Amino acid sequence: MARTFRVGLIGYRFMGKAHSNAWRQAPRFFNLKANVELHTLCGRHAASVQAARAQLGWQNAATDWREVVESPLIDIVDIGAPNDLHAEIAIAAARNGKHVLCEKPLALNVKQAEAMLAAAQKAKVVHMVCHNYRRIPAIALARKMIGEGALGNIFHFHARYAQDWLVDPEFPINWRLQKETSGSGANGDINAHLIDLGRYLVGEFKEVCGLLNTFVAERPLADALAKGARKLGRVTVDDAALFIGRMENGVLANLEATRFAAGRKNHIEIEINGSKGSLYFDFEDMNRLKFFNGDDPKDRQGFRDILVTERGAQPYAGNWWPPGHIIGYEHTFVHTVADFINACAEGKPVQPTFEDGLKNQRVLAAVEESNQKGRWVKL
Amino acid sequence: MARTFRVGLIGYRFMGKAHSNAWRQAPRFFNLKANVELHTLCGRHAASVQAARAQLGWQNAATDWREVVESPLIDIVDIGAPNDLHAEIAIAAARNGKHVLCEKPLALNVKQAEAMLAAAQKAKVVHMVCHNYRRIPAIALARKMIGEGALGNIFHFHARYAQDWLVDPEFPINWRLQKETSGSGANGDINAHLIDLGRYLVGEFKEVCGLLNTFVAERPLADALAKGARKLGRVTVDDAALFIGRMENGVLANLEATRFAAGRKNHIEIEINGSKGSLYFDFEDMNRLKFFNGDDPKDRQGFRDILVTERGAQPYAGNWWPPGHIIGYEHTFVHTVADFINACAEGKPVQPTFEDGLKNQRVLAAVEESNQKGRWVKL
Amino acid sequence: MARTFRVGLIGYRFMGKAHSNAWRQAPRFFNLKANVELHTLCGRHAASVQAARAQLGWQNAATDWREVVESPLIDIVDIGAPNDLHAEIAIAAARNGKHVLCEKPLALNVKQAEAMLAAAQKAKVVHMVCHNYRRIPAIALARKMIGEGALGNIFHFHARYAQDWLVDPEFPINWRLQKETSGSGANGDINAHLIDLGRYLVGEFKEVCGLLNTFVAERPLADALAKGARKLGRVTVDDAALFIGRMENGVLANLEATRFAAGRKNHIEIEINGSKGSLYFDFEDMNRLKFFNGDDPKDRQGFRDILVTERGAQPYAGNWWPPGHIIGYEHTFVHTVADFINACAEGKPVQPTFEDGLKNQRVLAAVEESNQKGRWVKL
Amino acid sequence: MARTFRVGLIGYRFMGKAHSNAWRQAPRFFNLKANVELHTLCGRHAASVQAARAQLGWQNAATDWREVVESPLIDIVDIGAPNDLHAEIAIAAARNGKHVLCEKPLALNVKQAEAMLAAAQKAKVVHMVCHNYRRIPAIALARKMIGEGALGNIFHFHARYAQDWLVDPEFPINWRLQKETSGSGANGDINAHLIDLGRYLVGEFKEVCGLLNTFVAERPLADALAKGARKLGRVTVDDAALFIGRMENGVLANLEATRFAAGRKNHIEIEINGSKGSLYFDFEDMNRLKFFNGDDPKDRQGFRDILVTERGAQPYAGNWWPPGHIIGYEHTFVHTVADFINACAEGKPVQPTFEDGLKNQRVLAAVEESNQKGRWVKL
Repeated sequence: MARTFRVGLIGYRFMGKAHSNAWRQAPRFFNLKANVELHTLCGRHAASVQAARAQLGWQNAATDWREVVESPLIDIVDIGAPNDLHAEIAIAAARNGKHVLCEKPLALNVKQAEAMLAAAQKAKVVHMVCHNYRRIPAIALARKMIGEGALGNIFHFHARYAQDWLVDPEFPINWRLQKETSGSGANGDINAHLIDLGRYLVGEFKEVCGLLNTFVAERPLADALAKGARKLGRVTVDDAALFIGRMENGVLANLEATRFAAGRKNHIEIEINGSKGSLYFDFEDMNRLKFFNGDDPKDRQGFRDILVTERGAQPYAGNWWPPGHIIGYEHTFVHTVADFINACAEGKPVQPTFEDGLKNQRVLAAVEESNQKGRWVKL
Repeated sequence: MARTFRVGLIGYRFMGKAHSNAWRQAPRFFNLKANVELHTLCGRHAASVQAARAQLGWQNAATDWREVVESPLIDIVDIGAPNDLHAEIAIAAARNGKHVLCEKPLALNVKQAEAMLAAAQKAKVVHMVCHNYRRIPAIALARKMIGEGALGNIFHFHARYAQDWLVDPEFPINWRLQKETSGSGANGDINAHLIDLGRYLVGEFKEVCGLLNTFVAERPLADALAKGARKLGRVTVDDAALFIGRMENGVLANLEATRFAAGRKNHIEIEINGSKGSLYFDFEDMNRLKFFNGDDPKDRQGFRDILVTERGAQPYAGNWWPPGHIIGYEHTFVHTVADFINACAEGKPVQPTFEDGLKNQRVLAAVEESNQKGRWVKL
Repeated sequence: MARTFRVGLIGYRFMGKAHSNAWRQAPRFFNLKANVELHTLCGRHAASVQAARAQLGWQNAATDWREVVESPLIDIVDIGAPNDLHAEIAIAAARNGKHVLCEKPLALNVKQAEAMLAAAQKAKVVHMVCHNYRRIPAIALARKMIGEGALGNIFHFHARYAQDWLVDPEFPINWRLQKETSGSGANGDINAHLIDLGRYLVGEFKEVCGLLNTFVAERPLADALAKGARKLGRVTVDDAALFIGRMENGVLANLEATRFAAGRKNHIEIEINGSKGSLYFDFEDMNRLKFFNGDDPKDRQGFRDILVTERGAQPYAGNWWPPGHIIGYEHTFVHTVADFINACAEGKPVQPTFEDGLKNQRVLAAVEESNQKGRWVKL
Repeated sequence: MARTFRVGLIGYRFMGKAHSNAWRQAPRFFNLKANVELHTLCGRHAASVQAARAQLGWQNAATDWREVVESPLIDIVDIGAPNDLHAEIAIAAARNGKHVLCEKPLALNVKQAEAMLAAAQKAKVVHMVCHNYRRIPAIALARKMIGEGALGNIFHFHARYAQDWLVDPEFPINWRLQKETSGSGANGDINAHLIDLGRYLVGEFKEVCGLLNTFVAERPLADALAKGARKLGRVTVDDAALFIGRMENGVLANLEATRFAAGRKNHIEIEINGSKGSLYFDFEDMNRLKFFNGDDPKDRQGFRDILVTERGAQPYAGNWWPPGHIIGYEHTFVHTVADFINACAEGKPVQPTFEDGLKNQRVLAAVEESNQKGRWVKL
């Protein structure tokens, strides 16, 4: 009989909601190799976490993450807390023998990430960083196609992650806009996704030259606003992060992440060009992958608009609905959690591991260093 | 304290999976006016329904729908069984005082639909036909905009529902291809959706002239195939159904439903043209609504590509994820069930009612009659 | 040495401008089998036609079309005059041994069209109706692909021609809105194009059921407006024309033409579905053809977005610019005229002939009759 | 009475064909302030230039550009020759008092460009560099909208010019692939266009960090190929050029130009994000401009798809066809030439001048220097 993993989730806001859904839904749509119990939801504010517990479907609530990582009742620790807590929680969880799933970016900096990887490896637990976009069916298909050589030798990786939630200068400061809690701004929050997709689909970064910018230096403080006052605070992270670079395999990279692109909500645009073809993806149409096949007959070549919902033929699609019935954002977490549960059941690694998180962190750090020093930085 | 509704669902395949998900998810994402219990899942084959029960998250399984509709433990009956069972189950459920949610098309024919409406009205239960596409956020927004006069006087309702699952002549016969079980083919299955959207967004149909066609008259029988044999059976429903018509408000209607459009998976394309603007929708990009506003300055007019994921501003969007994080097919059922539960809690009607289902059935029947007689038919 | 054809063009407004450009440009971009001289431009108003002559590049101007068709100096008569003059001019031109290129619709009615064809055949001149859209590179490619079997057996021809220039109720009456001069409204003006494309790409129409409608029955008279007065006149043609039908090869047809689709400027949308694939075209993106190939590997099927600008591989593209450098509306006339000149040089027929124009006229008439009688009409 | 300018055009291949068309067509579609005569076409090979003369519509042919620039019969010199000849011809033409229109990039390097500007200024002739994309109607509209403040403060200029004609490693070396004749590769040929559009629409570049790359270092020599032999030569220019940078007004720039993007034919993608809205353009859909207006009502915001063919309301559109009837690549040259003729007639400057060409050259040089030195370069 299948064993049951009891999960403790730290964090109950945006990521908490998305992860809770994933833990609830994975067993409904996937034939998993183990059962899961949504055992404990943990957050700092007792009343809020109790309300979230009921709403999101957890058995217990806790306010101290140490209880969760130390509890003998917990098998898996899932970390959806602000970035400054990732390292401490993950290391403690690993030391207690828990399998760990951690939101991205893995840590505040390279040093933390190294310690996290070391702790997880030493404890021999399953460790995964939640780069959920790897498990968009279209991205998983892209990976498969590239692996099979559909693009030939790759020349370009060109990507842009554009949002617009900071265009309004009255948007208040939250933890994501403060270096102490988030480590960085657009760089660690969304550029990290592009870097991960680049590493997943194309290769390792070799050298980068980056540019960070903060367009709006001061914003209202949320705390003051809540009390009806208007007090400005300093934004200590980047609003936009862009870089050009070379990958180890000679691919030219161009990545740009911004929270200042009016009208772009969660626009993740990726283009990969190779000697035999090209791929294009936009997250706002996440069920589609565009593919140019240079081997098509000359008179009828063109980017194919692949609707990635084909049961049997395309990754993850068979677990949901018939072709043409699209899925959404949250499903990427369900796929991630499903694969993570299976890995825990089998005691095998599952990509992206903390090692991926660490490599990502190194690229983030190189972009930051390059920006500070005004020159190229090698990885 | 909120009361709890115990639900019995008849059917566990495609619609059973979608409805189960909706019952599970609605309380997680909506603040409902009542609680729900997934009490009993019902299907004909004991072993299959038991497996489905566990997979889909129900407490009990049953093999006889009569038990469900008669059980004092059940408050709501949800009908996801083949079309030929809708009437009998719905009428029995209503007579037993259950609120009834029924898949579309409401019935096999107008007569059945009339009896269903009468039974529900007599029993004073809440009754709803599951035209889930009304609750696509983009469609709900379209309805709101039209109601506010954004299009002015409407001239055209032009719609096409195109799938391709029957293009392969070896696709076997199932209940959807037999008149006894399904009532009709593309007409009742997918044209019914277009008709409902036309009625919801634009107005009532006045007269129609239709054309039904069966491109592949004989197909392998599934039963024989399962035994390794190949035996042909007769397809007794339409593969494609199209009609032109006039609505009561003078709008010209053009609707086409087909299962023979290679490459179109679940392509529901709707265009509505009015004196002040136009709307365009395609289900394969269901999070988007295109809006042409004739009042925009002349030098910068154009169809706006509205990504309908805006919290606060757009229907249902606030219950899910931040802007730009799209939702999928299954969410339309969650919205339907959420509104249905609230209606049950308040004892109020909720659109689309069985009366909508009946009116829809009358249009379906008129299209069929028109095709048989080769002339226009008034409603 | 190549002979030279001297051309007389009747009409100098919209079509006059487009045809003049075609006669001027064809020899610059095509290696023609004959030379052409833009000999005489003809129009009713002496001053206007003189101004147009200079602007559009003609040697002489005339105010009486009879002079042109009878002149021994003229070899080719090109008719861009209002529809009510087509028959008389074309018949006279043919009788005088001129090759004739005539704008669409060929005539006001079937009877005229029959007489035109008879006259042209009797005179053994080259005759062509200017359905210029046949020579959009994307459409020519579609024809080639269908001819090669890329779509297999065809099931559906679904087309919509949508404009919005009549949405404004103050748009004044011109010759296109009066039955005497134009024969019909959207039907003959734009539905005729869809019918021609259907015949060119798919097959002959067998039976139709149509619906014509005039949304705005009265409009300001242009003459009165010019004098600063506002006087209403009756619109005597249809604003929208739609029909469903069957083709001889069993294809289901659905055509809609309207001048009341806000935001649609010259939107000619065509979808053709077959057993092996589908094609989609939209004139507002006229350099593109979308192709779904059912033979592509299952995991990477999708509509290809073919940019039809590929030298060597695609029709007409090689005469213009490198791949990706698009052409526009006027080029379709250049292609038409180039092929017409070559046909004249070789004394061979060139499609679409007056016979095509006549067959088109018969479909237009059947749609009109069907609308009047409220029933299906066979061709 | 209007005066007549006699034109001498140097070069008769790709640009020669496009410019010839522009000189022929401008007077047909624009009411110009002067007449033009296509006086002399000049090229090195006597037979080829004679054939081109007849095909392209010029009165005379010449094989020595010095004759043209010195001829008293010539008023305007139009330079479409390879880049290494621009400076010498332009300076000689200016010294002879000719107005000069010169293809881009203006010169091989900054020094040449400075000399050209000085010569033109000293001679007080009208000088223009042919950055034809400024006069795409959609781009001209973008400029107007930005000038009116439709985007507010601008944050990002993100552009990519992607072609694929060098993906094939067997594509032979021509003058564009040799530094002596072309100055650079993708940088001067297509990055120059992006830089010009950035300067035209957004502002001046302040500092850049660039990356050039040659993916295929050796290619067959065309001369040898013509003789049936296969001999490899060295590619001495860049295949791809990308850079990030800051503009003087604080805008972050990201430009990428490549000839190695399979499936991208002449894909010029531009996105500009500001505090009030965003613009998006793609040359392969050159009749469209996408505009996000942050002032639209919250529930119906989205990128508007503006079809820039609206007579009266939109730049250049009124000279061609009715709305929805698109134009193509060559029309951008007609617009350029029309504005140039009018400037010559009035003796006024016309943008983009040689000064624009020079500033562009400085950015190209900075990108090159940055790539060589591996660090940021200030302008």
